[in-house]
Amino acid sequence: MAENGKRPIRLGMVGGGTGAFIGYVHRVAARIDGDFQLVAGALSSRPEVARESGKNLGLADDRIYTDYEEMARAEAAREDGIEAVSIVTPNHMHFGPAKAFLEAGIHVICDKPLTSTIEDAYALQKVQPKNGAKFLLTHNYTGYPLIRQARELVASGVLGKIRVVQAEYPQDWLTEPTDDDNKQASWRTDPARSGAGGCIGDIGTHAYNLARYVTGLKTEAVSADLTAFVPGRKLDDNVHIMLRFEGGAKGMLWASQVAVGCENGLQLRVYGDKAGIEWRQDNPNYMWFTEFGKPKQLLTRGGAIDGNAANAMGVRIPAGHPEGYLEAFATLYSQFAAIVRGEGADYEGLLPTLDDGVEGMEFIMASVKSSQNDSKWTRFGE
Amino acid sequence: MAENGKRPIRLGMVGGGTGAFIGYVHRVAARIDGDFQLVAGALSSRPEVARESGKNLGLADDRIYTDYEEMARAEAAREDGIEAVSIVTPNHMHFGPAKAFLEAGIHVICDKPLTSTIEDAYALQKVQPKNGAKFLLTHNYTGYPLIRQARELVASGVLGKIRVVQAEYPQDWLTEPTDDDNKQASWRTDPARSGAGGCIGDIGTHAYNLARYVTGLKTEAVSADLTAFVPGRKLDDNVHIMLRFEGGAKGMLWASQVAVGCENGLQLRVYGDKAGIEWRQDNPNYMWFTEFGKPKQLLTRGGAIDGNAANAMGVRIPAGHPEGYLEAFATLYSQFAAIVRGEGADYEGLLPTLDDGVEGMEFIMASVKSSQNDSKWTRFGE
Amino acid sequence: MAENGKRPIRLGMVGGGTGAFIGYVHRVAARIDGDFQLVAGALSSRPEVARESGKNLGLADDRIYTDYEEMARAEAAREDGIEAVSIVTPNHMHFGPAKAFLEAGIHVICDKPLTSTIEDAYALQKVQPKNGAKFLLTHNYTGYPLIRQARELVASGVLGKIRVVQAEYPQDWLTEPTDDDNKQASWRTDPARSGAGGCIGDIGTHAYNLARYVTGLKTEAVSADLTAFVPGRKLDDNVHIMLRFEGGAKGMLWASQVAVGCENGLQLRVYGDKAGIEWRQDNPNYMWFTEFGKPKQLLTRGGAIDGNAANAMGVRIPAGHPEGYLEAFATLYSQFAAIVRGEGADYEGLLPTLDDGVEGMEFIMASVKSSQNDSKWTRFGE
Amino acid sequence: MAENGKRPIRLGMVGGGTGAFIGYVHRVAARIDGDFQLVAGALSSRPEVARESGKNLGLADDRIYTDYEEMARAEAAREDGIEAVSIVTPNHMHFGPAKAFLEAGIHVICDKPLTSTIEDAYALQKVQPKNGAKFLLTHNYTGYPLIRQARELVASGVLGKIRVVQAEYPQDWLTEPTDDDNKQASWRTDPARSGAGGCIGDIGTHAYNLARYVTGLKTEAVSADLTAFVPGRKLDDNVHIMLRFEGGAKGMLWASQVAVGCENGLQLRVYGDKAGIEWRQDNPNYMWFTEFGKPKQLLTRGGAIDGNAANAMGVRIPAGHPEGYLEAFATLYSQFAAIVRGEGADYEGLLPTLDDGVEGMEFIMASVKSSQNDSKWTRFGE
Repeated sequence: MAENGKRPIRLGMVGGGTGAFIGYVHRVAARIDGDFQLVAGALSSRPEVARESGKNLGLADDRIYTDYEEMARAEAAREDGIEAVSIVTPNHMHFGPAKAFLEAGIHVICDKPLTSTIEDAYALQKVQPKNGAKFLLTHNYTGYPLIRQARELVASGVLGKIRVVQAEYPQDWLTEPTDDDNKQASWRTDPARSGAGGCIGDIGTHAYNLARYVTGLKTEAVSADLTAFVPGRKLDDNVHIMLRFEGGAKGMLWASQVAVGCENGLQLRVYGDKAGIEWRQDNPNYMWFTEFGKPKQLLTRGGAIDGNAANAMGVRIPAGHPEGYLEAFATLYSQFAAIVRGEGADYEGLLPTLDDGVEGMEFIMASVKSSQNDSKWTRFGE
Repeated sequence: MAENGKRPIRLGMVGGGTGAFIGYVHRVAARIDGDFQLVAGALSSRPEVARESGKNLGLADDRIYTDYEEMARAEAAREDGIEAVSIVTPNHMHFGPAKAFLEAGIHVICDKPLTSTIEDAYALQKVQPKNGAKFLLTHNYTGYPLIRQARELVASGVLGKIRVVQAEYPQDWLTEPTDDDNKQASWRTDPARSGAGGCIGDIGTHAYNLARYVTGLKTEAVSADLTAFVPGRKLDDNVHIMLRFEGGAKGMLWASQVAVGCENGLQLRVYGDKAGIEWRQDNPNYMWFTEFGKPKQLLTRGGAIDGNAANAMGVRIPAGHPEGYLEAFATLYSQFAAIVRGEGADYEGLLPTLDDGVEGMEFIMASVKSSQNDSKWTRFGE
Repeated sequence: MAENGKRPIRLGMVGGGTGAFIGYVHRVAARIDGDFQLVAGALSSRPEVARESGKNLGLADDRIYTDYEEMARAEAAREDGIEAVSIVTPNHMHFGPAKAFLEAGIHVICDKPLTSTIEDAYALQKVQPKNGAKFLLTHNYTGYPLIRQARELVASGVLGKIRVVQAEYPQDWLTEPTDDDNKQASWRTDPARSGAGGCIGDIGTHAYNLARYVTGLKTEAVSADLTAFVPGRKLDDNVHIMLRFEGGAKGMLWASQVAVGCENGLQLRVYGDKAGIEWRQDNPNYMWFTEFGKPKQLLTRGGAIDGNAANAMGVRIPAGHPEGYLEAFATLYSQFAAIVRGEGADYEGLLPTLDDGVEGMEFIMASVKSSQNDSKWTRFGE
Repeated sequence: MAENGKRPIRLGMVGGGTGAFIGYVHRVAARIDGDFQLVAGALSSRPEVARESGKNLGLADDRIYTDYEEMARAEAAREDGIEAVSIVTPNHMHFGPAKAFLEAGIHVICDKPLTSTIEDAYALQKVQPKNGAKFLLTHNYTGYPLIRQARELVASGVLGKIRVVQAEYPQDWLTEPTDDDNKQASWRTDPARSGAGGCIGDIGTHAYNLARYVTGLKTEAVSADLTAFVPGRKLDDNVHIMLRFEGGAKGMLWASQVAVGCENGLQLRVYGDKAGIEWRQDNPNYMWFTEFGKPKQLLTRGGAIDGNAANAMGVRIPAGHPEGYLEAFATLYSQFAAIVRGEGADYEGLLPTLDDGVEGMEFIMASVKSSQNDSKWTRFGE
């Protein structure tokens, strides 16, 4: 049951078989609030991988598919068929499933970028979804609470008229020509599977989307200089773009997969004629906000937001706890689960025990006693 | 099904009814990796709240309890009874349920501190768990991947002999006497429900546990100065402690609920005769590591860890993405679920759409074209 | 006498009268190491300001000039004439004095940018300095020790082949149209005195120079988008430039005077195929250095540099003390001077006294005593 | 002449011969604003070093002394005798000179801590200075502009009643037993020359003085735990202290010379019942200021201070430029001086030249032209 008391939505997945990164991310995301339950999947185009992966995820045998079109047909026909599907295949395999499920009346959650070609994108735009099936593109950075707040700040006029937008997304993982050995890298650097853009499609679009999402500005034109620095690479691995927005704002966008020392340095800076904001994904719970002539302020996730706004912003825990707090908590649960199952040898000694709890109480008692005795040095149990 | 292909463990919960913070955190934590399924609960001592809360969480009517002892008996008797229980009540209500479930042969996951009195703690230590039922104390900060790595670094000897340990946990939320209005505050500042310590029990134990967890050092004695700064407050809201460890290491521990400007500033610094480490919870994916005479290094979560170690450390996503990444993703899923259910009015316009996807493709195409045309300014669709 | 035991060089100054910012900076810079002594000046084109300013700086009456050409002639003729001159006038007044003094055989220290027009720049390049008079352009950011170290790192090949150079210099002080009221702003936004560029000449050149200085790369071409955002402003206040360097490296340069929240955000990031470096002027004693696949390292000014290198790099004090350390020290000296002169009313109570020193000793003694008495609380003088 | 138009004060120095660190710092500090001129010195107790050092600093032969008492007598007798003296000897050699010069009617600027024994300190307090000679103790960190501002914030009541004061000063340079080889280390770890305290006297007093300076709170008592971690060390190298202030505020002080990874981590945090401030010396131009319930603000040196206050605070340059800005500037001047003297071989190619200036103009012109041509890629001189 979802945390909000609703029945979970029945979910399918296309792509995301064993070893896939983004499929795993989608499944965890679907599970955190309890709103979805995975019940069907065409998890790989290779039948064996599809079956093995489906089994591991607890899918019923008859709901493990090897073909997404068959899956769309079969699930649409079932009474207990999936209501939504997550598409987590490489870019060139977004269009087909998206079209098939929308036309089958099944809601679509699709990874970005939308497709590998602009023609596919326009074609998808013309698909008629059955029964009003809805579409979500997982530009996931728009889900950060402070990005939502940034968008509200701009919309509220507090920044004044926007003048300058600086977006960047530097990484370094493709610094060397490791493309063949690396499953994540191989399709991203292959024009047939990624489309016309490499770095620009993989992460440039994230930076662009974020700039658009927060500012609401429409793009007038771009001036771009795309480069493939690594010898033999067919697609760009560094992107330099100047942006002109309607209404006169200007911007720059830098995305790179060869910026040594940068892991996922997504950053957005927006300056209006009254105030400016600055945000970095690597510390996403903080955002700088400066009104002209006043000291910089460090806004924190959920810092001073009323309940309703916090809900729209996706705030789950109070300010000050990083969002990873929930995952650290989850690690204790999961590793305790392994111990409970008798499979926790790797975690022995790593989890806090009853004895740790007793010692914690002794610490409290000794501290209280020491404090009552003018800070006399006090041993536990003394 | 759990992400690892295992059957989820059947979980119960004591405490954690509507409006409770830590119960919610435990449920999300139990859900993230799919290892647990909540099937029973005594969610409140007030029967109506217990029933309403249980219903919202999808519990079957006959597994919504108002008394934890009855729950322990009944669930132990069922074939499909809970295998583990989460205890998320105020401190003084930990002992009773922990004893009851352990003696019923049900694994216990218990919030910290262990109990409200040292006597209860010792008594709990003497309980004989039936069928080897296990116990987990949720000192959740030990679940952060870099805390696990810190522990390994110390254990490996890379820091040399530990000399100095500085732990702190400053907050500011109890700066003013708001105790009566605030559900979270009221029990924490009440000796009857919290025990002999206020700030020291609530967050001082976290800092202490973290220092012990990472260093493995045993405490020899403490010299403490506990203060209640807010007029009328019965328990300490600021904790100053000097620590002496066996073997000669020394430490300081500062915890405060009245340090204005601090949200959850948990910090641990450990210095040996060869190297030092420094970590802060408010940016938990980074840790400083310095070998004597060499430049400081910034270690990142999962940065250079092999697969097995990463597993023990609870790393879910690659380095560079903050752990909140999964939650930002989850926000898209959950708010899309609301839209799918026809209840998403608050989220209209907040989620990326198919049109955003088309524009993203136009951005890629225009950028590629501009780059091919010597960076000529290029409009979308041109 | 200079700190190095040398006789100070006799210095003159053109511009820099009362109220001028950069003239003051040049004088302090000339004084810090004791290498120069100011003995002559044409400090203003307004005779009264020139006289008043010269008197305040202790110049002999006959060495206070109102005309730089007269000054060049007269000083060149004196046996004890100036050996070097600092030119700290607005951009359009650099060329004339630079030519006059070089042709008089007097070394020239000139503020940047070189001139206000390219024609003047070329003309100055053709001037024949008498007696090998030398020329220094005060691109002052090249004087930071870590910038020198960055240059060495690039030259040593440790970064490998340079691929990407990101330079930026955002400010916000011209966000609003305050130009007429503000002496610093008025000439900088006036084409007649600043030349063809506003922001680009004032700070864009700094960012550009720094990129060139550190990388040694030669520029092939630029693609620029200069904007005057403030209504009525005649010169650019925001600069977006893409750079192509010989050999294939690419870069971006952003300079702005309207980026609200940025004070002097000069930043340089350089990425090669083996390593990357990142430096910010607002915390100039630290620089990130990352070799591909290894943790980021935080280099500190003078951190691990041998004596000779440290000298070339301009390191004055040990690592860890920020360079402002010397200035905080100087503040004590200067304000004590005012007190000694009987003019220190403003500083009464601000400077540490003998009584503070006694209390410091009492603090030491009480702490030592407490420590010897098992940390017993100890009063001063007890 | 001083920058403020005053005649420089004639200064002598005791200690500070060749190779001494703090003597050099005092001389630069005396020179920055031009308020002092060094004319006499007893720079070493070893006559040869005294003579050599004095000569290098340009002292007249008859004003190079080898005995401070002789210096005090002789200088007091001269018409052009020194008006002030800087005492920069090891701790145990502060008392003698301070007494001698005060009694000779010469102002004293003395390094900290005041003396090596409490008896000397009390004795110095009883000295009757001739002609009202004044005394300055160089607790140099009190000279940072933001420390002055912190003091004003506390005094203004904006923080409310102070509750908690956390001061720390960790270093790591004495992590290993290098004491004999290291001139700076040898006297600091020798009880005969340093007094009863090692780390506490060298840096603990700085942290203590800063806490007292900013808060104005009087100390009631201390509870201390001093440790010598390095085998064989006679004085403490780590200091843990709890503080109680009059009026009920509490504090902690940590100073260490063995905290690996810390260079000069002086830090002060002060929390009142209305607001809190946090400052670190390693980035001294920034200070956090948080009012309860509001976002953290980042105050900057000189950020929003009127002229008079800025003067008292010792602000020399506008906000945003780090104070090291002046020193980077000075490096250009000094290295140009070496070149002018024909001794600049080490600096060839390091200083910006006329050609760099021409290229800077070409950069401006090409950028302006590119911008006028719709961002067409433009070569220099095109």
